[in-house]
Amino acid sequence: MKLVDKNTIDGMEQRFRAQFINGLSGYKSANLIGTQSQSGVPNLAIFSSVFHLGADPALMGMISRPDTVTRDTLSNIKELGCYTINHVNEDIIEAAHQSSARYEPECSEFEAVGLTPIYQNGHLAPYVKESFCQIGLKLREFRPLEINKTVMVIGEIVDVSLPEIAIRQDGSIDYSKLNTIALSGLDEYHKAASIKRLSYAKVGKPLVEL
Amino acid sequence: MKLVDKNTIDGMEQRFRAQFINGLSGYKSANLIGTQSQSGVPNLAIFSSVFHLGADPALMGMISRPDTVTRDTLSNIKELGCYTINHVNEDIIEAAHQSSARYEPECSEFEAVGLTPIYQNGHLAPYVKESFCQIGLKLREFRPLEINKTVMVIGEIVDVSLPEIAIRQDGSIDYSKLNTIALSGLDEYHKAASIKRLSYAKVGKPLVEL
Repeated sequence: MKLVDKNTIDGMEQRFRAQFINGLSGYKSANLIGTQSQSGVPNLAIFSSVFHLGADPALMGMISRPDTVTRDTLSNIKELGCYTINHVNEDIIEAAHQSSARYEPECSEFEAVGLTPIYQNGHLAPYVKESFCQIGLKLREFRPLEINKTVMVIGEIVDVSLPEIAIRQDGSIDYSKLNTIALSGLDEYHKAASIKRLSYAKVGKPLVEL
Repeated sequence: MKLVDKNTIDGMEQRFRAQFINGLSGYKSANLIGTQSQSGVPNLAIFSSVFHLGADPALMGMISRPDTVTRDTLSNIKELGCYTINHVNEDIIEAAHQSSARYEPECSEFEAVGLTPIYQNGHLAPYVKESFCQIGLKLREFRPLEINKTVMVIGEIVDVSLPEIAIRQDGSIDYSKLNTIALSGLDEYHKAASIKRLSYAKVGKPLVEL
């Protein structure tokens, strides 16, 4: 094991440091955030920072850098009050990754990268047709984090579209039916295979495979 | 595609709902949080909510339920001001999962589940010897989220121990050398295999595999 201490981290070249530190949290989710501007331009951007926040109410969080001139996800969410989260699957990795390029506000990333916006369930923000898990959310909190000028967005889930076969009897989701991929670091995409499910852990009781 | 609307979500039985909503964010990281009580008892707990927050300063976030009588991670972090984050790998899935049982405060989960606490680099909190990515952090923020009574903990990375062979020339981390696994939902463990790395996305420029 090699020790990378604080001095070494502090002295890292900026891009090396970004690659290294981004890789430390473990596997990350890969999601496309669908929004729409006030003038009606659909917007799409890949995020690796979406996380589960709570089941009741059903909340999801995500972290974003502050919006710059050409990145419109945050301002669209604020203006429209809603957005969508769509799992990236193996067939749309390149398109999803390309959505992180700095397109102008009047350009739809859907069109630029070759994905299809769909409007459904009375939701104002576009979903990604090619995704097998499409989640509609309404904005609940927009919370700037002073510590490094990022923003935490908290949304409440209002609907989910996914293949019925992916919902198991106990409510858990069978990812093998969604073809969902995982991210590590800034740019590495992974296919995952289930090893096992384990029973709820109790003191003094052996775990059982579900 | 099956539509699960807000009424359906609201009407779900509690455990079904927990399984379903927990599964929506995509793949999650699996990390063991190492802490120590003021009376010197090492504590260990698995978290699926650790996320990357920023590279400069090097920050990681995690979400926790509020501490109850028998869950000591949060109070230990607050008291000691530091903690460790350790990747779960394929060889320690059962032990990591078992750490979520409600052991008494005077019981070391390390001992109970069969993992080894190590103290290194002058850090007061214990690392997990069996993990191939051991990260030491000092507490920066402890932020209760009123929306659902969870707590966001933000820590600054002070050291990292990992196999030297896992650090690529550009700083990115080769997860295949760490045997790190991914989680989905509440209880499903996955092995991941790299599909590809893609170049930094630019408007009008084709992506290249790295």
